[in-house]
Amino acid sequence: VTNQGNRTQLTIAVDAMGGDFAPVEIVKGAVQAAQELGVALIFTGSVKDIEKELSNYDTSGLKISIVEATDVIRDGEEPALSVFRRPNNSIGVATRLVKEGKADAVVSAGNTGASMVCALQYLGTLPGIERPMACGAYLALAPKTVVLDLGANVGVKPSQLVNFAVAGSVFAKIFCGVENPTIAILSIGAEEGKGNEQVKEAYSLLKKSGLNFIGNVEGMDIVFGKANVIVCDGFIGNILVKYSEGLGHAISRWLGKELKGTLPMETLEKTSQMLYRMLSPAVAVGGGPLVGVNGVATVAHGNSKAPQIVGSFKNTIMAIETGFVSKLKAELEKAQKDIQ
Amino acid sequence: VTNQGNRTQLTIAVDAMGGDFAPVEIVKGAVQAAQELGVALIFTGSVKDIEKELSNYDTSGLKISIVEATDVIRDGEEPALSVFRRPNNSIGVATRLVKEGKADAVVSAGNTGASMVCALQYLGTLPGIERPMACGAYLALAPKTVVLDLGANVGVKPSQLVNFAVAGSVFAKIFCGVENPTIAILSIGAEEGKGNEQVKEAYSLLKKSGLNFIGNVEGMDIVFGKANVIVCDGFIGNILVKYSEGLGHAISRWLGKELKGTLPMETLEKTSQMLYRMLSPAVAVGGGPLVGVNGVATVAHGNSKAPQIVGSFKNTIMAIETGFVSKLKAELEKAQKDIQ
Repeated sequence: VTNQGNRTQLTIAVDAMGGDFAPVEIVKGAVQAAQELGVALIFTGSVKDIEKELSNYDTSGLKISIVEATDVIRDGEEPALSVFRRPNNSIGVATRLVKEGKADAVVSAGNTGASMVCALQYLGTLPGIERPMACGAYLALAPKTVVLDLGANVGVKPSQLVNFAVAGSVFAKIFCGVENPTIAILSIGAEEGKGNEQVKEAYSLLKKSGLNFIGNVEGMDIVFGKANVIVCDGFIGNILVKYSEGLGHAISRWLGKELKGTLPMETLEKTSQMLYRMLSPAVAVGGGPLVGVNGVATVAHGNSKAPQIVGSFKNTIMAIETGFVSKLKAELEKAQKDIQ
Repeated sequence: VTNQGNRTQLTIAVDAMGGDFAPVEIVKGAVQAAQELGVALIFTGSVKDIEKELSNYDTSGLKISIVEATDVIRDGEEPALSVFRRPNNSIGVATRLVKEGKADAVVSAGNTGASMVCALQYLGTLPGIERPMACGAYLALAPKTVVLDLGANVGVKPSQLVNFAVAGSVFAKIFCGVENPTIAILSIGAEEGKGNEQVKEAYSLLKKSGLNFIGNVEGMDIVFGKANVIVCDGFIGNILVKYSEGLGHAISRWLGKELKGTLPMETLEKTSQMLYRMLSPAVAVGGGPLVGVNGVATVAHGNSKAPQIVGSFKNTIMAIETGFVSKLKAELEKAQKDIQ
């Protein structure tokens, strides 16, 4: 938000402490992003640790500051409770910088749930969205297909599925480069009338929503990318994602055993790993902004190294520069009017 | 149901026309089952076609009869409508033989939905079961784990999940050889209180059911076989099964391309096919009796050849001789009392 010559320089708040390789890779990636993408940085976390990391790089000409955050919320900790008890955690401090207008966005590779709680608490959600959602093309097999919600919103009303459709549509346009995303409901048959009550009602709402709604799709259609946006209750989305993760682990291990001795060890390991990536959604979802938040809060992978952090910065900048949040807000309001 | 010396000979009604390799492989398998397992057969279907097939085998000493059925319901046809319009189809005629006491069980490799509709219509369901269910260890990766319901019952009450638990438990005991099957609810977190309303209520019911209930499991726990019986609404079960099928297709194709040239063609094809079988539940589920039916109605795979038909006969005989139906009836009544 500072002016640099003619154009406004963006300022990104960075949780330096979150992620498997924090603070080393986070600081490294953020400095690289500052150099390559021309953004200003405000790190949050242990000033001492961050300064030590920064001393490894030539930061001349970069606009970098640090705000002390005394706490870190680790992976596996219960998000809501942790944020409530330790408000001075590095994600919370970084998110509040956005709320206070000191930063344009926040990036964290820490506890995803904590990022969601902080976004919800400090930035709030857009109209019709109850909880922020992590979004992305969750299967490498279907890189232009976004499935949501994946677990944040459980037991939702049919009208919420319409909001997911809007959110997914705006997301797919900006982040997957799909011009007019097709939208479908995940159900147990393609015909109208197939599914549970939630799906049937959402079907009739989506028909009059003005969105590019193509009807119901079934489980296999996720894999084959039959629609660009597939909406479902977070209960199902979460089960699907975790089921896929389990399959990824089990199948890649199985393949390793099955083909042992028939392939060079290196080829086999590479194939097993690729197979894991193909099946395991958590790995495929890239670092992107939480969807439905009234502000740009980016969640990067826990296992991000510097290049992935730079990637998360790129998505963050894209969200800011394309007006992702205001576009989504306008589309949500429009859809809610259309389905009334 | 005819007497043969000291012991009662079982009579199996066989839909000769259903299945990808009908009537050839069905008749072949059934005759083999009659020889090896000592059962009497009543084929239903085209008398001419069945007689032609039978002429290929030495059937001396076997008790075989044929009942003409003028219609066949093909795969892909809408089951309820087809059964209603063409009641003289080969599955319907065979199922009515059980209802009339002329056969002890029915075996069909035809349209599964039509088998369910016929079982529902002619044999009825056990107390608390609304629709018959196809059951089985649906993932080859977890051969002692039964997931149900897989699509027959959508949008069920919490008490129905208890019935699924009972059904899965009796099934796992008899057909998977598990002595005291563990039972879990599919949800989005292990703790009590995680999930949607349906799951939360089912949790408290299962706690007082007297079953070997171990709590909630998550999506990955299906793969790792964390419980012997995992219950879920048929809406989710159906999506999971079809998602797996889609993954099976896509991943085996992907592997074929990925490893082309690095492995002998034969090894590669075998591995791809195995991978498909590992992921694709429809292939893994063996021919077994529909669960919740007031009678033994066995659904064999559509792609069954003679050996698989013999396998289906074995499961059918096991269901009859272990008193699967009466045991399940008693357990359902007990559980319904316990949760009141």
